[in-house]
Amino acid sequence: MTESLSPEARLQELGLTLPPTLPPIANFAPALLDDGLLYLSGQGPRDSAGYRFGKVGADVSADEAREHAKLVGLSLLAVIRQELGSLDRVRRVVRLFGMVNATPDFVLHSRVIDGCSDLFGAIFGQAAGRHARSAVGVGSLPGNITVEIEAVVAVHP
Amino acid sequence: MTESLSPEARLQELGLTLPPTLPPIANFAPALLDDGLLYLSGQGPRDSAGYRFGKVGADVSADEAREHAKLVGLSLLAVIRQELGSLDRVRRVVRLFGMVNATPDFVLHSRVIDGCSDLFGAIFGQAAGRHARSAVGVGSLPGNITVEIEAVVAVHP
Amino acid sequence: MTESLSPEARLQELGLTLPPTLPPIANFAPALLDDGLLYLSGQGPRDSAGYRFGKVGADVSADEAREHAKLVGLSLLAVIRQELGSLDRVRRVVRLFGMVNATPDFVLHSRVIDGCSDLFGAIFGQAAGRHARSAVGVGSLPGNITVEIEAVVAVHP
Repeated sequence: MTESLSPEARLQELGLTLPPTLPPIANFAPALLDDGLLYLSGQGPRDSAGYRFGKVGADVSADEAREHAKLVGLSLLAVIRQELGSLDRVRRVVRLFGMVNATPDFVLHSRVIDGCSDLFGAIFGQAAGRHARSAVGVGSLPGNITVEIEAVVAVHP
Repeated sequence: MTESLSPEARLQELGLTLPPTLPPIANFAPALLDDGLLYLSGQGPRDSAGYRFGKVGADVSADEAREHAKLVGLSLLAVIRQELGSLDRVRRVVRLFGMVNATPDFVLHSRVIDGCSDLFGAIFGQAAGRHARSAVGVGSLPGNITVEIEAVVAVHP
Repeated sequence: MTESLSPEARLQELGLTLPPTLPPIANFAPALLDDGLLYLSGQGPRDSAGYRFGKVGADVSADEAREHAKLVGLSLLAVIRQELGSLDRVRRVVRLFGMVNATPDFVLHSRVIDGCSDLFGAIFGQAAGRHARSAVGVGSLPGNITVEIEAVVAVHP
């Protein structure tokens, strides 16, 4: 990966395509830009085959859930592009909050959420892709999706 | 609803009254204003009859919990008015984080948290009330309350 | 406690030492400074004896977990000092988000997270240590640690 490539160029180089954005399932915005920060609403794991459902640690393995977290990351990127016009307007990723719909004895949350963090590192590079993060296990998620991640990114003026 | 009314006028037109604010139950502030953003600590559902308790999906239905989320919203508005002097000083709602004290198989978190989002839309209007949001199911909440919501709102200079 | 002491002096007066910082266990940064705010990734409870594990409300009592939350606070302070060079560069604590790895019937989350809030009040003082906060019970945490807390602090220019 060439560090000097733009995020949109990296996405293309990696052969990744972003899913279509969907209207929110309830009364909120997919993202809100205020004072240079883009606040991204929590996204779930989906692609053209639909959403991914189940309890991580029972129905779904940590490695499968890590792939789901990558799908969540692609949906977050799709919302970023929709809101900003281009991923190249991202100045840096600031923060991720990763929530795994896990069994009470699940322990591999960090490995799961790396699926999204690794994607963001690959797209935005070592400097701009570096971010603060928490990864936790929630008791349940909307529609029984496996992973939900929200994010804040800083935007070029 | 007239979009040109102020938030305080809308509140009055809707016949809504805000509950008294309570001192925090532990060592934190109900809200903190810094650099134009008001960070609101998580509030629970209460009115003059007290708090609402129980597991959503077992003791409490999704539609009941949605009413609880509206009560949480009214408490958040009460804190905003206490901190800023008036709801009219809110420039826009930025972000809600909605936590439902749900059973592991609960799936209707978005419907529940809409109880707060709908209220904020009615009070602040389509533009200023629009916000980013995540809705999740937590395993437990302080005192076994049904819903807890925290928020960030932007304030007029 | 003398309110006019600096945070570093207060830490010394209280006889507290900060643990060594550890490299993150996954692909994220322990903290990110952007536009005057330091975003701190979630930390767990550890000291020279290692991490604290278990379900609060079953394996671990609320009072024990409160001590763990203090350990988390010390780790957060260690990251702050590492990132900023000194705790004295903190302008104010803005926000804590406290997550307790609790049983579904646990209710004393606020008492637990006070272990961190009390520490921050003692170190940063009544004004600068005052913060917004939410405390919730999560279904599981990485490695089965008992408490995870993330924070945002504002930094002197």
